[in-house]
Amino acid sequence: MIIIGEKINSTLKAVRPAIEAYDAETIQSLAKRQVEAGSDYIDVNAGMFYDDEPQRLAWLVDTVQAVVKTPLCIDSPSPAALEAGLKAYRGDVPIINSISGEKERFEAILPLALKYKTKLITLCMDDTGMPETSDERYALAEKLIGRLTDAGMKHDDIYIDPLVRPVGTGSHYGVAVIETIRRIKTEYPQVHFACGLSNVSYGLPQRKLINQAFLVSAMTAGLDGAILDPLDNKLMAFVAAAKAVLGIDEFCVEYLEKYREGLFEGL
Amino acid sequence: MIIIGEKINSTLKAVRPAIEAYDAETIQSLAKRQVEAGSDYIDVNAGMFYDDEPQRLAWLVDTVQAVVKTPLCIDSPSPAALEAGLKAYRGDVPIINSISGEKERFEAILPLALKYKTKLITLCMDDTGMPETSDERYALAEKLIGRLTDAGMKHDDIYIDPLVRPVGTGSHYGVAVIETIRRIKTEYPQVHFACGLSNVSYGLPQRKLINQAFLVSAMTAGLDGAILDPLDNKLMAFVAAAKAVLGIDEFCVEYLEKYREGLFEGL
Repeated sequence: MIIIGEKINSTLKAVRPAIEAYDAETIQSLAKRQVEAGSDYIDVNAGMFYDDEPQRLAWLVDTVQAVVKTPLCIDSPSPAALEAGLKAYRGDVPIINSISGEKERFEAILPLALKYKTKLITLCMDDTGMPETSDERYALAEKLIGRLTDAGMKHDDIYIDPLVRPVGTGSHYGVAVIETIRRIKTEYPQVHFACGLSNVSYGLPQRKLINQAFLVSAMTAGLDGAILDPLDNKLMAFVAAAKAVLGIDEFCVEYLEKYREGLFEGL
Repeated sequence: MIIIGEKINSTLKAVRPAIEAYDAETIQSLAKRQVEAGSDYIDVNAGMFYDDEPQRLAWLVDTVQAVVKTPLCIDSPSPAALEAGLKAYRGDVPIINSISGEKERFEAILPLALKYKTKLITLCMDDTGMPETSDERYALAEKLIGRLTDAGMKHDDIYIDPLVRPVGTGSHYGVAVIETIRRIKTEYPQVHFACGLSNVSYGLPQRKLINQAFLVSAMTAGLDGAILDPLDNKLMAFVAAAKAVLGIDEFCVEYLEKYREGLFEGL
């Protein structure tokens, strides 16, 4: 399971002031804690700074890299900001978060992925908007995988975000994503996922319960990567439990290790 | 989701003395609380009383029926005990728990199911022992469904227990069951499940976490019934969350109701 730590994000109220103030210590602490908690990638996002996003994003990249070796997930819809971040980057192969089927975005971001030899999170949407059904999601994913492959990208470098929508606004949105994951994993076993989870529970009470259930359900269908809060012990405990139950964690070695490390305390 | 409440069971240390002492009040309280918690069936088991199981089981049936109308799941491998229980039973169609592919057990219990027009929990095992793989489980289930159908039972009256074994003793046991459930649900959409959950976590720490993850995972694969402790609020909260996520709970009505009833308090 590929964990992309989502905490260094300018849309988070608790984090934005640290980016605003160029507070390296806070950002670096968030980076280190997310790595210790098991992140495979650290997402960095400065999207709320409309005036100087490229500069802020490059600063985030520099600041995080100064303290951890974990590769980064460079997060912006803006090609200029992405390129500033990629220029500052010196680590292992990063991920760009994200491209989509929207014409302008696709044409501007694909060249960056090729130039900087990155992996690429690909949103299941295009200029017609957000998909409703599993069929629509799958068709979009298939088309995008085809176009990226034609451009020279390997399946292994593509991370699909199936675009989770709140089950509170449409009962079918959860199962649509779960079905999409199952179909993509069957047809494209080398392609990965980078699924944002928390949208699924938007508007409902006890959101964490819904997020935990959705995570386990999506992993059952083949989800092998998610953008989430690795500092949420309970959610990470469910990642470990799901791996044990799904036979991904042989002899439950990792589960037992997490237990000994105290991950499950207070659950 | 068909919930079979498992609490009135002589193998439970806290419950056995109440059966021993013919303590109707304790048994009836357990029955009422399980019904209030959302049980569709109440399991009754007196299997630890080797000398007078039929009499004890008949007493359990009488005692529970005196206070709740919820149908019972009459639980014994012994044909004599089952028949004593069934003779005492006066409610809606009950379930017999359980038949299996073991020759002697099959031949003794099938006539009871037909005579008393019951539903039937069917264990995925036969005289060759417990199955290892998903293929073995599925083959057993298919054979048993065929034999029961030939004898006149409807698919809708068959509840498969895919026999969960501990993932701590074999990493593949969880996913074997999940795959079996998916295949049975695809090939026999009318057939139900009555899956015992807690074996999956045997020998591991923080067993409830594993049980919760397994429940959600199995529901994702098509599990529509389980034998569990309905007084375990957290487990029942995961039933509700999984239904919301899987689109079984339209508009999340049931989830919101459970929230208002306080089911999620303290989670």
